[in-house]
Amino acid sequence: MPQLGLLPRRTWATLLSQLLRPPRAACISAVGCHSQVAEALLTSQPKPHQEKPNFIIKIPKGTRDLSPQQMVVREKILDMVVSCFKRHGAKGLDTPAFELTEMLTEKYEEHSGLMYDLKDQGGELLSLRYDLTVPFARYLAMNKLKKMKRYQVGKVWRRESPTIVQGRYREFCQCDFDIAGHFDPMIPDAECLKIMCEVLSGLQLGDFLIKVNDRRIVDGMFAVCGVPESKFRAICASMDKLDKMSWRDVRHEMVAKKGLAPEVADRIGEYIQCHGGVSLIEQLFQDPRLSQNKQALEGLGDLKLLFEYLTLFGIAEKICFDLSLARGVDYYTGVIYEAVLLQTPAQAGEEPLNVGSVAAGGRYDELVATFDPKGHKVPCVGLSIGIERIFYIVEQRMKNSFKKVRTTETQVFVATPQKNFLRERLKLIAELWDAGIKAEMLYKNNPKLLTQLHYCENTGIPLVVIIGEQEQKEGVIKLRSVASREEVAIKRENLVAEIQKRLSES
Amino acid sequence: MPQLGLLPRRTWATLLSQLLRPPRAACISAVGCHSQVAEALLTSQPKPHQEKPNFIIKIPKGTRDLSPQQMVVREKILDMVVSCFKRHGAKGLDTPAFELTEMLTEKYEEHSGLMYDLKDQGGELLSLRYDLTVPFARYLAMNKLKKMKRYQVGKVWRRESPTIVQGRYREFCQCDFDIAGHFDPMIPDAECLKIMCEVLSGLQLGDFLIKVNDRRIVDGMFAVCGVPESKFRAICASMDKLDKMSWRDVRHEMVAKKGLAPEVADRIGEYIQCHGGVSLIEQLFQDPRLSQNKQALEGLGDLKLLFEYLTLFGIAEKICFDLSLARGVDYYTGVIYEAVLLQTPAQAGEEPLNVGSVAAGGRYDELVATFDPKGHKVPCVGLSIGIERIFYIVEQRMKNSFKKVRTTETQVFVATPQKNFLRERLKLIAELWDAGIKAEMLYKNNPKLLTQLHYCENTGIPLVVIIGEQEQKEGVIKLRSVASREEVAIKRENLVAEIQKRLSES
Repeated sequence: MPQLGLLPRRTWATLLSQLLRPPRAACISAVGCHSQVAEALLTSQPKPHQEKPNFIIKIPKGTRDLSPQQMVVREKILDMVVSCFKRHGAKGLDTPAFELTEMLTEKYEEHSGLMYDLKDQGGELLSLRYDLTVPFARYLAMNKLKKMKRYQVGKVWRRESPTIVQGRYREFCQCDFDIAGHFDPMIPDAECLKIMCEVLSGLQLGDFLIKVNDRRIVDGMFAVCGVPESKFRAICASMDKLDKMSWRDVRHEMVAKKGLAPEVADRIGEYIQCHGGVSLIEQLFQDPRLSQNKQALEGLGDLKLLFEYLTLFGIAEKICFDLSLARGVDYYTGVIYEAVLLQTPAQAGEEPLNVGSVAAGGRYDELVATFDPKGHKVPCVGLSIGIERIFYIVEQRMKNSFKKVRTTETQVFVATPQKNFLRERLKLIAELWDAGIKAEMLYKNNPKLLTQLHYCENTGIPLVVIIGEQEQKEGVIKLRSVASREEVAIKRENLVAEIQKRLSES
Repeated sequence: MPQLGLLPRRTWATLLSQLLRPPRAACISAVGCHSQVAEALLTSQPKPHQEKPNFIIKIPKGTRDLSPQQMVVREKILDMVVSCFKRHGAKGLDTPAFELTEMLTEKYEEHSGLMYDLKDQGGELLSLRYDLTVPFARYLAMNKLKKMKRYQVGKVWRRESPTIVQGRYREFCQCDFDIAGHFDPMIPDAECLKIMCEVLSGLQLGDFLIKVNDRRIVDGMFAVCGVPESKFRAICASMDKLDKMSWRDVRHEMVAKKGLAPEVADRIGEYIQCHGGVSLIEQLFQDPRLSQNKQALEGLGDLKLLFEYLTLFGIAEKICFDLSLARGVDYYTGVIYEAVLLQTPAQAGEEPLNVGSVAAGGRYDELVATFDPKGHKVPCVGLSIGIERIFYIVEQRMKNSFKKVRTTETQVFVATPQKNFLRERLKLIAELWDAGIKAEMLYKNNPKLLTQLHYCENTGIPLVVIIGEQEQKEGVIKLRSVASREEVAIKRENLVAEIQKRLSES
């Protein structure tokens, strides 16, 4: 029987129980996100005898608007992720939101019921994309590309239900990086894991662990445990639920629903407790049953090489070979991996969040061939960042820290203490805009000075330029720092240069 | 009768004929864009007796993939547009790709047949968004927001046909900026025009002109010409086709299809020849018929104020008051505008492109109220950049200039001249990545040096680090400039610093 590797058994047990615990915190706060919307819904019920719209104003189930606050967080995180992808030489790609339905079906098997289909309005049958991987494979095949390193950021749609209470949305963003092409073994695979580490470290989400396995080891394990080959994918799908269900429940599903013999399930149950590092690979090479299986041996050989490369990349201690990892998607053929946050750092008064998987991927060597008329293979390996979960964690953390997020980048506000200075303000602000300075003013003919200064304080604008009668006479503009409330008079012709100097210093 | 203003009549006539000419160049090259795809389609027809897919591999009609080359161009243009929106204090917003169908219908009237509906899979009736304006209005009403300055970039979908031959796609990107709220007249409207000028100047697309009109002047004109009020919107829709059809054809549509009396159409025909600047506004104030119409007078008054602000912004000479401008969308209530490129600068051997409208917008004061149960108004004014046309112009220009676009940003390539140096390369490249340097290597155990250097030349990577036996012995790495082919030996521990120095200098 294989033994636990790398870490003492108790540590692993604690980790495991943490990882398998249902993400309660996530559920509650995802609903919290919608409280504003819910409130809008409650208060916007039309009253009788009104001529106005007789519908309840709302957005589709499982979707949401992203507020300016959320957009700021997203932009920062996406910038960081995309710059990591570019650091690794990836090219950008975009594909349509929908594909011909026949391009998507059979790719997801058990999941294809979750696809959004478009109405037949005369013409082609279309469905919204379910992920970014299948469109990428379709793109490679259609353009006869034999290799490509690409990233793609975009929305995908899945009709999962009930959605919001689980913290899952039906429309969500994916960030994918993939390497397609015939290469020497495990070099691109190792780079994918390196990228996952760089992204997760860079975002400072706290400690994480990447579980690694190989579909060939999973299948080999099923074979030596006595699973009939026809049940491989179904049993694999059950195993994939181990991050949401206990082994007891998964075992029950395998036996009662999928018709697996109890003793076969128990043999699987023994294997899937194994996790560790290189030493576990060596152990399994010696495993009397597994070592008889050709597929499993191939998988173990590749994993051994992979760990060598991961050590050279300096990330081996972040990676854990875990026999319980299955990955639900059907198209994987080799190495598979999934990153989990061990715990987000609990700050003062903060509940530790358990968000489960935040990045995942694997090797899919056969998918492109399914699109190619001649069945030409283009081996691929890739990863998808669970960007929605990451957004959620960072948003929660900011909420808990009571930090105010600026939703605009305005640097200078143009104000006046006097009436009838609209024209001077308009001339001045155009000058600032033309110099590339981010500037705002109030759209009022005669705003009060206090209103204008409050606007700056509320929105975090650091500088105010003030023009009035006195200043106009003297040919100067007052430049005020909102934080210090200090004001200096600047010659009108030097204003832009002075503002640029101040902004470059801050 | 109103006379032409600002420019001599002949200049305007030349301009007008240019603007009304059908965009032939655009048609041809939009098809050209798809040649790769078309080729893939032709060559990927499945042959009989093959076990492989029996479908033709393709993407939905009217959609396209964006290649890495196209993505690079888009990213640069979008960055420029969004940074302009941010310079004006706009906040980001995102809304779902689809809305409840009932939220969208009646907003586009004649166009609602162009909406993509989702299949009824049990649950809500949904449609893909047709623009970003209606979702913005829905967002304001749902969240009871009384003011907001927001931008949004995203895809919208319209089932127009035949699509590609017209250079139009059924899936395309929109970039919108809008100002919602009760403000003093024409200040936000003037800012929208300023933004259009900044974007179009900033992108260096060549000379442009922004045509301005007001829906109240259009309606006033219809009224004094004798158009029955019930036909206002239908006649307005016909008038909107003046940038694709001649007045003769538009007049025919008005009379034959929409049942307008010929003499009424001829009266409209006289007015819509008028374009000019402030002097035209003054003339129309004196127009015996139009000056009797309250709505028209309100519109003229606002336009006069608008031109005053545009002069202060220094952009009045880019703006032309044009009575033929109608704007097709139904929700506009006040000022409307549309920017046209007069001609892209024809470079050596380049056909001048006529692409028509590249930005447009207007005031829509009633749209939010249609979503609000109590009918509360939130006046809005905004603009949409015709980003697809701009992408197309810039892509064509780059194609004609034979400039090679780099699709990756890789700064350093890690090479070796010897066999069995994979491990050293892996260690070295991880060091570069960890220092934030964009680096690539070939995924081969033993690549040839020439192959590696060719890769750098083909992809535009400026620097190569070379590690071999000799270098390892001496504790150095060779740093090679791809352009000059000069090589220097750098101490291994100084490598990252030296690379960073070189990159900061270039």
